[in-house]
Amino acid sequence: MQGPRLALVPGEPAGVGPELCARALQQRWDARLDIFGDGAVLVDAARRIGLPLERSAPDLLRAPGGEFVLHHLPTATAAAPGRPEPVNAASTVGALLAAADACSAGHCLGMVTGPVHKAAINDGGIAYTGTTGLLARHTGCDTVMMLANPTMRVALVTEHLPLREVADALTPARLERTLRILHAALREGFDIPDPVIAILGLNPHAGEDGHLGREEIEVIQPVLARLRNEGMHLEGPLPADTAFLPAKLADFDAVLAMYHDQGLPVLKHSGFEQAVNISLGLPWPRVAVDHGTALDLAGSGKADPSSLFAAIETCTRLARARTARERTA
Amino acid sequence: MQGPRLALVPGEPAGVGPELCARALQQRWDARLDIFGDGAVLVDAARRIGLPLERSAPDLLRAPGGEFVLHHLPTATAAAPGRPEPVNAASTVGALLAAADACSAGHCLGMVTGPVHKAAINDGGIAYTGTTGLLARHTGCDTVMMLANPTMRVALVTEHLPLREVADALTPARLERTLRILHAALREGFDIPDPVIAILGLNPHAGEDGHLGREEIEVIQPVLARLRNEGMHLEGPLPADTAFLPAKLADFDAVLAMYHDQGLPVLKHSGFEQAVNISLGLPWPRVAVDHGTALDLAGSGKADPSSLFAAIETCTRLARARTARERTA
Repeated sequence: MQGPRLALVPGEPAGVGPELCARALQQRWDARLDIFGDGAVLVDAARRIGLPLERSAPDLLRAPGGEFVLHHLPTATAAAPGRPEPVNAASTVGALLAAADACSAGHCLGMVTGPVHKAAINDGGIAYTGTTGLLARHTGCDTVMMLANPTMRVALVTEHLPLREVADALTPARLERTLRILHAALREGFDIPDPVIAILGLNPHAGEDGHLGREEIEVIQPVLARLRNEGMHLEGPLPADTAFLPAKLADFDAVLAMYHDQGLPVLKHSGFEQAVNISLGLPWPRVAVDHGTALDLAGSGKADPSSLFAAIETCTRLARARTARERTA
Repeated sequence: MQGPRLALVPGEPAGVGPELCARALQQRWDARLDIFGDGAVLVDAARRIGLPLERSAPDLLRAPGGEFVLHHLPTATAAAPGRPEPVNAASTVGALLAAADACSAGHCLGMVTGPVHKAAINDGGIAYTGTTGLLARHTGCDTVMMLANPTMRVALVTEHLPLREVADALTPARLERTLRILHAALREGFDIPDPVIAILGLNPHAGEDGHLGREEIEVIQPVLARLRNEGMHLEGPLPADTAFLPAKLADFDAVLAMYHDQGLPVLKHSGFEQAVNISLGLPWPRVAVDHGTALDLAGSGKADPSSLFAAIETCTRLARARTARERTA
């Protein structure tokens, strides 16, 4: 196998993550995949859906796609498909952090993660609101969550926040930090020399000149003016309901939404299967599937691997771009 | 001409409304269209883009589509395309109210409206936030704004409200009233005997069992439980980011979004040209175009009439349904 070495983390053992990873190991990739998780969970998941996968050594998995290094992180108890065990929370989170450490140490150049189950982790006694936040704390970085499918990229200023807290959370500092991370990632990770970013307003119709809210005038416009002076190509603040018209989207390299439900319904509607979730701002690329644990499908073999496959491909591209950049620097 | 008599209101004289109406009068419809506006503005708009339209009598317009009754409501001053005159605000609003009165009196069975220019009306000294609200006050009805395109219908609980006011505006009474109006309209206007309505959560992931906000538990769920007891078929509260997946949408007759930018970006992305804006809850159907005055296109002949044509067709269907219902009752 050629290409960058990536950490692949199946996620919640009782969800569809292990069987999707087993599917991924059936084929060759332009990357070398190291697995971070419980080897027995993967082997069981493969057997259940009739795919060949065996543990050829304590630290190796063998499948039609090749031989893969396994960083075995045992679960506390066996989890039946569809029934997460909170006692496994520590190993689920441990696998994410071990993969992160492997990236930070340079052993891997990026990480790809399957879905985890928030409630199971919290019920297991670990405060957890999302993997992006977990990795941000673990690495001490500011991060931005961006979702991408073949037709659009949507990044968020605020993420998993109750709606009533969104307006106060939109500070000039937060918006500026988000835009700097997004702009740098589009240039460096996606190889777009002068990215065009569409920034949505916070309010309907982008506030309609102050008639429907003043955050556009008081928060967003001043930040955009400052960053435009530095040469960034920023469009907005734009009304969210027309910024996503296909003819307009074609002009933007990314859309920055102010909050979760302003940006993600349209992205998922327009291409859920191939959507991926990219954490920007970490020292290395991290790409996740854009779906949950799908507990009702776990073990059935019916889960669609398109998002995981797209995540592996996206992470491979980002890791290559990073390598090329560091070689040039 | 056959079919229900509908009021057609071009809207802002300096926008694309007059020329789109002139286009509509070039063809025959399954409805009789009465025009409420300045006859000279329509004749000028038609001439500018090379379409035949003449004033055959003080109260008649003649075009290839037939002869149309004109309720002439003169503007205060001639408005050049692209340059709204605030002094014309009274005639723009007056045309909307005259059409409403014609509907309330039974002369017309519904109204179709072109785009108006909010700032021009407000600058003209008339407080105005939207035509739905104007007609609600004028008729003393509670209304609900619903947008529809060929793939989805999206209604809103709150409309043109600053985002920071949305959470407090979502009261049980408002949600219940909205659902009752929407449910009745789907049954009566759209002839769906047992409509399935998807209700979105207010917060990301519909609050995730209270971890991301409590309005789903404290406001939305109790209202849904009450109305389900009356027999309504209500799904939710659902996470907004996955409710619009095409496979799920197919199960819903309408989606109820809690606020403007939660529901409209995806609707306009998925089919802007044929989208229409329907006011529910009035004594008669009112359907509007789903676009603005497009001042930059006014006079060029390039404005796309699809939304106005879809509005005429939708209003025709709704007027017929109302007539059939009243005949049965």
